[in-house]
Amino acid sequence: MKTVIIGGVAGGASTAARLRRMDEHAEILLLERGPYVSFANCGLPYHIGEVIHDREKLLVVTPQDLKDLLNIDVRVNNEVIRINRAQKTITVRNIETGSTYEESYDKLVLSPGAAPIIPSLPGVSLPGVFTLRNMQDMDAIKDYIDQEKPPRAVVVGGGFIGLEIAENLHHRGIEVTLIELLNQVLAPIDYEMAALVHQHLTFKRIRLALGDGLKAIHQAENGWMKVELTSGRSVDTHMLILSIGVRPENQLAADAGLELGVRGTVVTNQHMQTSDPDIYAVGDVTEVTARITGGRTNLALAGPASRQGRVAADHICGRQSSFNGVIGTSVVKVFDLTVASVGLNAKALESAGIPYLNNIIHVSNHAGYYPGASPMSLKLLFKEDGHILGAQAVGLEGVDKRIDVIATAIQAGLTVYDLEELELAYAPPFGSARDAVNIAGFGAGNALRGDVKLMNWDQVASLDRGKTTILDVRLPEELALGMIDGGVHIPLQQVRSKINEIPKDRPVLVYCQTGQRSYFASRILSQLGFDVYNLNGGYKTYSHAVG
Amino acid sequence: MKTVIIGGVAGGASTAARLRRMDEHAEILLLERGPYVSFANCGLPYHIGEVIHDREKLLVVTPQDLKDLLNIDVRVNNEVIRINRAQKTITVRNIETGSTYEESYDKLVLSPGAAPIIPSLPGVSLPGVFTLRNMQDMDAIKDYIDQEKPPRAVVVGGGFIGLEIAENLHHRGIEVTLIELLNQVLAPIDYEMAALVHQHLTFKRIRLALGDGLKAIHQAENGWMKVELTSGRSVDTHMLILSIGVRPENQLAADAGLELGVRGTVVTNQHMQTSDPDIYAVGDVTEVTARITGGRTNLALAGPASRQGRVAADHICGRQSSFNGVIGTSVVKVFDLTVASVGLNAKALESAGIPYLNNIIHVSNHAGYYPGASPMSLKLLFKEDGHILGAQAVGLEGVDKRIDVIATAIQAGLTVYDLEELELAYAPPFGSARDAVNIAGFGAGNALRGDVKLMNWDQVASLDRGKTTILDVRLPEELALGMIDGGVHIPLQQVRSKINEIPKDRPVLVYCQTGQRSYFASRILSQLGFDVYNLNGGYKTYSHAVG
Ligand SMILES: Cc1cc2nc3c(=O)[nH]c(=O)nc-3n(C[C@H](O)[C@H](O)[C@H](O)COP(=O)(O)OP(=O)(O)OC[C@H]3O[C@@H](n4cnc5c(N)ncnc54)[C@H](O)[C@@H]3O)c2cc1C
Ligand SMILES: Cc1cc2nc3c(=O)[nH]c(=O)nc-3n(C[C@H](O)[C@H](O)[C@H](O)COP(=O)(O)OP(=O)(O)OC[C@H]3O[C@@H](n4cnc5c(N)ncnc54)[C@H](O)[C@@H]3O)c2cc1C
Ligand SMILES: CC(C)(COP(=O)(O)OP(=O)(O)OC[C@H]1O[C@@H](n2cnc3c(N)ncnc32)[C@H](O)[C@@H]1OP(=O)(O)O)[C@@H](O)C(=O)NCCC(=O)NCCS
Ligand SMILES: CC(C)(COP(=O)(O)OP(=O)(O)OC[C@H]1O[C@@H](n2cnc3c(N)ncnc32)[C@H](O)[C@@H]1OP(=O)(O)O)[C@@H](O)C(=O)NCCC(=O)NCCS
Repeated sequence: MKTVIIGGVAGGASTAARLRRMDEHAEILLLERGPYVSFANCGLPYHIGEVIHDREKLLVVTPQDLKDLLNIDVRVNNEVIRINRAQKTITVRNIETGSTYEESYDKLVLSPGAAPIIPSLPGVSLPGVFTLRNMQDMDAIKDYIDQEKPPRAVVVGGGFIGLEIAENLHHRGIEVTLIELLNQVLAPIDYEMAALVHQHLTFKRIRLALGDGLKAIHQAENGWMKVELTSGRSVDTHMLILSIGVRPENQLAADAGLELGVRGTVVTNQHMQTSDPDIYAVGDVTEVTARITGGRTNLALAGPASRQGRVAADHICGRQSSFNGVIGTSVVKVFDLTVASVGLNAKALESAGIPYLNNIIHVSNHAGYYPGASPMSLKLLFKEDGHILGAQAVGLEGVDKRIDVIATAIQAGLTVYDLEELELAYAPPFGSARDAVNIAGFGAGNALRGDVKLMNWDQVASLDRGKTTILDVRLPEELALGMIDGGVHIPLQQVRSKINEIPKDRPVLVYCQTGQRSYFASRILSQLGFDVYNLNGGYKTYSHAVG
Repeated sequence: MKTVIIGGVAGGASTAARLRRMDEHAEILLLERGPYVSFANCGLPYHIGEVIHDREKLLVVTPQDLKDLLNIDVRVNNEVIRINRAQKTITVRNIETGSTYEESYDKLVLSPGAAPIIPSLPGVSLPGVFTLRNMQDMDAIKDYIDQEKPPRAVVVGGGFIGLEIAENLHHRGIEVTLIELLNQVLAPIDYEMAALVHQHLTFKRIRLALGDGLKAIHQAENGWMKVELTSGRSVDTHMLILSIGVRPENQLAADAGLELGVRGTVVTNQHMQTSDPDIYAVGDVTEVTARITGGRTNLALAGPASRQGRVAADHICGRQSSFNGVIGTSVVKVFDLTVASVGLNAKALESAGIPYLNNIIHVSNHAGYYPGASPMSLKLLFKEDGHILGAQAVGLEGVDKRIDVIATAIQAGLTVYDLEELELAYAPPFGSARDAVNIAGFGAGNALRGDVKLMNWDQVASLDRGKTTILDVRLPEELALGMIDGGVHIPLQQVRSKINEIPKDRPVLVYCQTGQRSYFASRILSQLGFDVYNLNGGYKTYSHAVG
């Protein structure tokens, strides 16, 4: 049995390695267009920033390793240019010699990945304009920085990679402007959560141009470029990185007539077989099932790529392993912050027409009395029946832990009521007797049980101020942080004694800094006959989101 | 409705707070024997060590707060001395005045906690001998250290609290000897995992006396004491802390004729009602269901106490909330290490007669190429059908995250096959494309699918060396770390070419440093017809455990 694998990094190398472990006798040929296999794509931005000093560390496994350890025939600088399905052969071009040759296959695995999107705009081919996908791209950017010592850079696109690049350019002493077409960075999280990230980026002196797009890049003098934006603004820069997303490398598959799906991805079944059962596809090029909606999507992340490779290898060896779709778990470091999310956000739920509730809390990553406690914000999205639809978290420490726990809960089909009961490890340096995840579950459970009615930050503007009491229950010294216009102030401590000062004939929106004390107040008020709403996420979320 | 709560800390204060939120009109009386309510028990060792400098930080909520925020009648220095079930009253002694009085109740909640066990041995009442449960105990220990500046201390008991105290005494410059009757610290983890902790403690210059017990304490000269051990050894010390466990404070319950369970705990139903439906019990004093075995047990931890309080409060208000038992999730910081576990360990499974398999891996907490990666060891225990029975982890970073994920998986009834598929958040600073939990799942799944046969470290000694080949597949430079006696050495890279050097007529035990490369070798060998076993946890586990 001869298996040929196209692409030698996350998906391809994982397929090859597992295949060898499952079948010592298989013939395995791995073809990679570039000069390297198995490099750490995800580490590339950090070598640019000299956070990862040693370039060699990014070469996780060499072709020689794959030969020595796994007996895999690896050919770098060999590009597959055609699949001849009828003959079960592929045509390969040796990039160093320019010659082409054919190879037969019994099974073929496509793991060609996804390529950075380059918009067709004036100036995108200028020197000093880059994308980042592989070692060569990284070397080019790093060399440019080392040699030109650019004082300024523009990063276009505020996704994971854009933010990682912005941070690492900043580490090199470069003044960075980040341009993003949406009104927020990090599309997987909702606006009010992204607002926390905007504040941090601004604090770190990244210049944010949100809601603005790239229009053209013009060469100027002395190595400078003028970047023209759709808003009419322009930014002077020495270099520009395009990180506006990726598109699946589907050319081979399309030419071979394999079925394509969303955004041009390759369609597979749960064993990663394409519409041709002798051809498998894995990684960024594939369409996957979104487990929460049951719909089909594309998720260009390394974890799924490597697990898909393992499934494809198993299936080639006659094992019935399956890849059962994705829930979309991700994390990114943004300077001192960690931002992580899983599942669907509000935008996605709205566009899918899925009704949902949400709950935002601000908590400490661990017991407040133990040194080093830091704030964390956690948003939970859930169904009327309690099933968890998504979660987003932003903070300094412990963010990835909470999202991994909720990801596990989502994969297991748990509800917010189960989150209330989760028994998580507690000692003061690590958490609280009630972990952030429990508290998120409490808040969601309370809302579903009707014990609290939540109002979101974006519903406040449209309140009829003459017909609603806005009640601030914070301590007097907290008012310096700002207040919602038209609010009255009664600290929680005095709500019972001053209850007669609150008109009973109209709804009350109650808030505090985080939403906890106002929840306590809302319990008092609702039991005393008031129609009361708690501001979801408190003044912290409100003030970040509103401005 | 009048509810009286006995004990004002984790369980009691949580009950009171939730009760108020659920019922604004309830009469709530909280009686606490000591001078403080709601103090941070779990933080006590860290104030002794001056890690938590500010003593006030441990007083999470004051009686005044409980009055102002929650309208709860709190009486500190008031000890309940009798429950008069027939009259539905309790008898209270005001400790300051010495007078007693009665209070009626509609519902009574017991949250008296558990008291440190003090063995009846000579010398346990000497000055300089302490236990640690509350603020007063902490103050006594800290004052003693501040005034006497003891050069040496003995800590008896290597559980969570004993280790936290040892670490914090060490922070104060005190030379600590830790005495533990078992041959290991931290009973919830298995011996070979504890061995990693022993090494770290020794590295930190804690003197370990394992497998040894306290026999007597004798007063010596100039404030010194001589501690006599069961082994015949003796240790000179200036102070001694007893931390050999706790026993439930069941006297009131016993006197009142409430049903008692394991280790003298108070039996409750899932709503936390004792055998008298008007009396609830929560926290350390209660018996709980062990979810994994279905048996009954006792777990003195703050998370369960606080969740039980919430359940009891709900039920008093007519809500059907339940506490559905525990899986035993815990974590402790031991100097630079984090040690966490969940579920049952090998000892517990063996004594419960539950057949199990286990899998030990050593991985990096995050991508190895990203700065700051550190080693972590993870042991998974599971059933033949894949269900997860327990997990234990030891490492520097990210240990609590993995145990929380597995705890969530256990609570959801997931299997090791589900762990293989978990989609966890990955970026280089936080994890790997294949997270430690996925890899633990792979290893377990491989064992259950028959793709690898594992041999545990403690099975090696009894191998018939004449009839088994012990094969070391590490690199030559790794042999300096030590080898298993009688082994032959063929690096993984050469196993295929030197296959003829390995006798085929006898079993092969293959090992490397961690168990990963030996797994690769075992796949080669088994497919070439050898009867091969992989050393579970590799030489790292073996050498720590053997010695
Ligand atoms: C800068 C950067 C940072 C990232 N950070 C993260 C992160 O933090 N977390 C995360 O989960 N994911 C991250 N990713 C995404 C992750 O790297 C990808 O999801 C993963 O590598 C996809 O694997 P793949 O095998 O599909 O594609 P790739 O790993 O891209 O491999 C595809 C390979 O196929 C080769 N190829 C393509 N066509 C041919 C052909 N015709 N013939 C021969 N070879 C061919 C390409 O040269 C390429 O080397 C990051 C990606 C980048 C670029
Ligand atoms: C040093 C230390 C460190 C700890 N570290 C951790 C940790 O890291 N993680 C963790 O999960 N758990 C930890 N714990 C355990 C945790 O504190 C307990 O599980 C939890 O406090 C139990 O709550 P409880 O309400 O049952 O008892 P407690 O919190 O002990 O409260 C019981 C209270 O009842 C009072 N009382 C008793 N009898 C009467 C009476 N007759 N009348 C009036 N009052 C009475 C007592 O004075 C006491 O204040 C630690 C405990 C200690 C001592
Ligand atoms: C490394 C690479 C070649 C894959 O090789 P691989 O051998 O399948 O992957 P790993 O090194 O993770 O090893 C996984 C195997 O070893 C086992 N294993 C891993 N760690 C182990 C440990 N500590 N102890 C025991 N077994 C272990 C696993 O069970 C698995 O075997 P299985 O699939 O047969 O169950 C491929 O993932 C790659 O090219 N990676 C770099 C590129 C990349 O991932 N980019 C994106 C992220 S930066
Ligand atoms: C603090 C104490 C008095 C309990 O009071 P509590 O109000 O129930 O507890 P918390 O402060 O955790 O608040 C929990 C409530 O606020 C809500 N909440 C907590 N944090 C929130 C946040 N950030 N945003 C919104 N709501 C929040 C929860 O939903 C919960 O309300 P609910 O039970 O009605 O759903 C009690 O736990 C205690 O005495 N603790 C100290 C002792 C101790 O725990 N020792 C052991 C560990 S050191």
